[in-house]
Amino acid sequence: MAIAAPSLRPISQADGGAENLQRALREWTAVIGAAHVRADTSTRDQYGRTTGLNAHRPLAILYPETTAQVREILRIASASRIGVYPISRGKNWGYGDATPAGANQVVLDLRRMNRIIEVNAKLGYAVIEPGVTQGQLHAYLKEHRTGLWMDSSGAGLEASVVGNVLDRGFGHTRYGDHCLTTCGMEVVLADGSVLNTGLGHYPNAKAHRTYRYGVGPFLDGIFTQSNFGVVTQMGVWLMPAPEAFSAFFVSTSDAGALADLVDRLAALRMQGLLQSTVHIGNDLRVLSSRTRYPWERAGGKTPLPEGVRAELRNEFAIGAWNVAGGIYGSRETVAATCRTVRRALSPYRVMFLNDWKLRLAGRAQKVLARFGLARGLGEKLESVRPIYGLLQGTPTDDPMRGVGWRVRGPMPAEPVDPLDCHAGLMWIAPVLPATGDEAEAVLKLVESIYAKHGFDALVTFTLITERSLVCVTNISFDRREADEAARARVCYQELTDRLMAAGYISYRTGPAGMSKLDGAGSSVFWDVTSRIKHALDPSGVISPGRYDPRAA
Amino acid sequence: MAIAAPSLRPISQADGGAENLQRALREWTAVIGAAHVRADTSTRDQYGRTTGLNAHRPLAILYPETTAQVREILRIASASRIGVYPISRGKNWGYGDATPAGANQVVLDLRRMNRIIEVNAKLGYAVIEPGVTQGQLHAYLKEHRTGLWMDSSGAGLEASVVGNVLDRGFGHTRYGDHCLTTCGMEVVLADGSVLNTGLGHYPNAKAHRTYRYGVGPFLDGIFTQSNFGVVTQMGVWLMPAPEAFSAFFVSTSDAGALADLVDRLAALRMQGLLQSTVHIGNDLRVLSSRTRYPWERAGGKTPLPEGVRAELRNEFAIGAWNVAGGIYGSRETVAATCRTVRRALSPYRVMFLNDWKLRLAGRAQKVLARFGLARGLGEKLESVRPIYGLLQGTPTDDPMRGVGWRVRGPMPAEPVDPLDCHAGLMWIAPVLPATGDEAEAVLKLVESIYAKHGFDALVTFTLITERSLVCVTNISFDRREADEAARARVCYQELTDRLMAAGYISYRTGPAGMSKLDGAGSSVFWDVTSRIKHALDPSGVISPGRYDPRAA
Repeated sequence: MAIAAPSLRPISQADGGAENLQRALREWTAVIGAAHVRADTSTRDQYGRTTGLNAHRPLAILYPETTAQVREILRIASASRIGVYPISRGKNWGYGDATPAGANQVVLDLRRMNRIIEVNAKLGYAVIEPGVTQGQLHAYLKEHRTGLWMDSSGAGLEASVVGNVLDRGFGHTRYGDHCLTTCGMEVVLADGSVLNTGLGHYPNAKAHRTYRYGVGPFLDGIFTQSNFGVVTQMGVWLMPAPEAFSAFFVSTSDAGALADLVDRLAALRMQGLLQSTVHIGNDLRVLSSRTRYPWERAGGKTPLPEGVRAELRNEFAIGAWNVAGGIYGSRETVAATCRTVRRALSPYRVMFLNDWKLRLAGRAQKVLARFGLARGLGEKLESVRPIYGLLQGTPTDDPMRGVGWRVRGPMPAEPVDPLDCHAGLMWIAPVLPATGDEAEAVLKLVESIYAKHGFDALVTFTLITERSLVCVTNISFDRREADEAARARVCYQELTDRLMAAGYISYRTGPAGMSKLDGAGSSVFWDVTSRIKHALDPSGVISPGRYDPRAA
Repeated sequence: MAIAAPSLRPISQADGGAENLQRALREWTAVIGAAHVRADTSTRDQYGRTTGLNAHRPLAILYPETTAQVREILRIASASRIGVYPISRGKNWGYGDATPAGANQVVLDLRRMNRIIEVNAKLGYAVIEPGVTQGQLHAYLKEHRTGLWMDSSGAGLEASVVGNVLDRGFGHTRYGDHCLTTCGMEVVLADGSVLNTGLGHYPNAKAHRTYRYGVGPFLDGIFTQSNFGVVTQMGVWLMPAPEAFSAFFVSTSDAGALADLVDRLAALRMQGLLQSTVHIGNDLRVLSSRTRYPWERAGGKTPLPEGVRAELRNEFAIGAWNVAGGIYGSRETVAATCRTVRRALSPYRVMFLNDWKLRLAGRAQKVLARFGLARGLGEKLESVRPIYGLLQGTPTDDPMRGVGWRVRGPMPAEPVDPLDCHAGLMWIAPVLPATGDEAEAVLKLVESIYAKHGFDALVTFTLITERSLVCVTNISFDRREADEAARARVCYQELTDRLMAAGYISYRTGPAGMSKLDGAGSSVFWDVTSRIKHALDPSGVISPGRYDPRAA
């Protein structure tokens, strides 16, 4: 009954050997110059690091600057049958970083392709290359007074905008579903041909960057979470700065409030009253971005004892659950939506914050500080400022602080690169229907497994669409602690397996999870993707193993 | 440079001949029973009709009832290499109706697969088969008091919900972009295997109908406007009936107002203040759904003389441009949005209408009627009632009246099937950036070509997304008039060619437009789709020619 999967020819290096690689390196060097081909041990070691479990030291790293060079590189790769692993900036923290999904691959680092090719203020879009970072795009939009807001993920200033889309990440604003706000991809295929999706292949198409689907099959989706091509350019929609904006925050000390909060917020989302992603973080999630694990107070024990956890909640003025979302619109509609949100969340104290209130609070704090009275307010302001920015599309390195939660001893200066501080970080992110019952069920399951292995359940439930939640949780550990690292491995496996068995499938996964995706009943799906892979990349040279469980 | 397109094996019948067909018919009959296989001339003639230019009488018509039968049918088709053209209900009016895209094909009519498999009121979705009609789904949702609204296209009660999605059609509400509101497809491939997209291939995935992307490559898009598989089931999201609703209407006598209206409405759309599709129809578009071409008053001339046109506008109380849109939300936000819309459209008179006002107006009309004073109000109410319903997702046959615009002589009783009244109908629907300048440019181009060929420019500009407009226009003619039909053909070609040359590419096309899609510069795109087609349907038996310009 099932489709016979076409057998991909094995990736060489193994069968081509060192000579094949040397020849390919010479050819690649001829294309991009010796300065942009690195095969020294030190650089290879750098790229072979991970915050997770499976790191593969690449054979070499190539740094092309143009689409034309990427075409040549892939042609050579196809001819030599050497696997090439493209990364945008390599900041796919906790989902694979910069390291290839398998052994014997060459990293194609696209950081030099960092041009902002076009920004259209009236139609609200940018055309960018994969090397463009969140920080760079944000600075550009501000500097050129475009009046446009981007949407930013929590991955920091140095993370790639395009890379996040291709992993189907999300952010915080009305444009939080990143896949939905891209329009037109340029994709280099394994044979070096250049595909323009949407309307982009019609040379003069006026709606190329405003209409996604094109005419005929809509292809963009197959280049996300896949290994079918190398995306070298992308249209990204940007929001016009709204006439009015308000952030809203809910903080409740009731640890049992999750289900109720989810149901109330999901109803608002499903009625289109809240248009942005809404994040519901637990105390540990918020704590982890404010401080590190209090080893002393915990008496060296893990997970965090309940008493210390309660003390810290109190000290940092953090709720058991902490909600943040944005409201965008006209003066009239933002005020009205605030009233609706207040009504819908009537059992909770909702704090609304806008630029005006924030300035006022800042001033009040200065005044109060003179009398030594500003401490609580300062903490409060400090804790909401980064998320307040994210809700307006301002990237920040702040959430990155969380990666060091369980790292022992001194930390390097900020901004912290997780790879430089021995941080162990692996995300597990199951997707579930947006109901309180489902959220409760996932939370229970996750907490019990974390507790069993001595880890803290750092959890955010995000309403990524009108109907679904992603439970974003991560194992945080110190990579130098062999025992902890071993437990992290077991914990990751158990979390993934048990969540999947219970029907909570990951919306996105890291290298350690790829091979699990071909579950019982899934064979036709992965047959079909294998067929498409074979049709577009018959030698299987692009990102072998990435979202490709049979090659993983 | 370009990918070599794999050569699809030619569809047989030609080389298999009559014997091959007879064998296949016997096998199909064994699968679905003699009552559900029709090869008689009369039925074949029925399916060989079109309102357009290119009709192909199918070899036979098959009426399966289950996915299992579709699997067997496709296996037999692949073995016999006979092209199979699936239709949901065959109501793809003006875009191909029920007739295959090419000769020597068998129609797979899925009308018996009309089960509403599941409706989830809390999560707001239905799982349906392709035979489910708009009228059927609407009646079901009402009868079972689900509290859910669907989105309806203008194609009438008998049109398929799934069929419209697969052609990437749109409707009128907050869920007007039909592609965006589907979640999980069941697709039968040419070899009879069954693909479940999204999370559907994980047997117990909880978020199957709430999260679209799944994990790994997102495939749904490639089954829209394509011929890669037969979709036999689909999840469709439904809106919870909002706490409050208001329609808004603008009607202006200023024929030059289009650009200004587009700019103002697009700004509202892009700020997320209007979440629904917004339709801007010209006088002729609205007129055509209220009356037929006034041959006598026009002295037999076409297109409609300016004087008569102005008179009719006046008689039917229609503007030169007529805007309709919906506002959905809470009591507070709908009121606030109405204020914002009024402010943004301040040069125009905006009419807001809700259920309460509509009831009031109905009562007022009855009272006024006693004094013979209700005529104008009655006209006004009559003209907005169908679109008011569509803005709440209530399907109606009303827009279908427009298909008879240029038909001469008596018409059959309503609801009118365009194929039963000699209506000539061909849509041309270029997509453009949502700016006033672009709308003006397209309007000018379209009007000049229509005038040249003696047709009326029936035009709607629809804001289908935050950034794009579709100009929905159609050639309306009487198929019995040989001269008019000949001019329709020339006009269609000229419209398509000149719009495409000017960069206004169709968002969707009928059979006469398919072969034009492989324009200069597009070769890699169609190479890639051909490769995928070949990978999934190596014998090329599913819908040969549909959105497949090289096979068209």
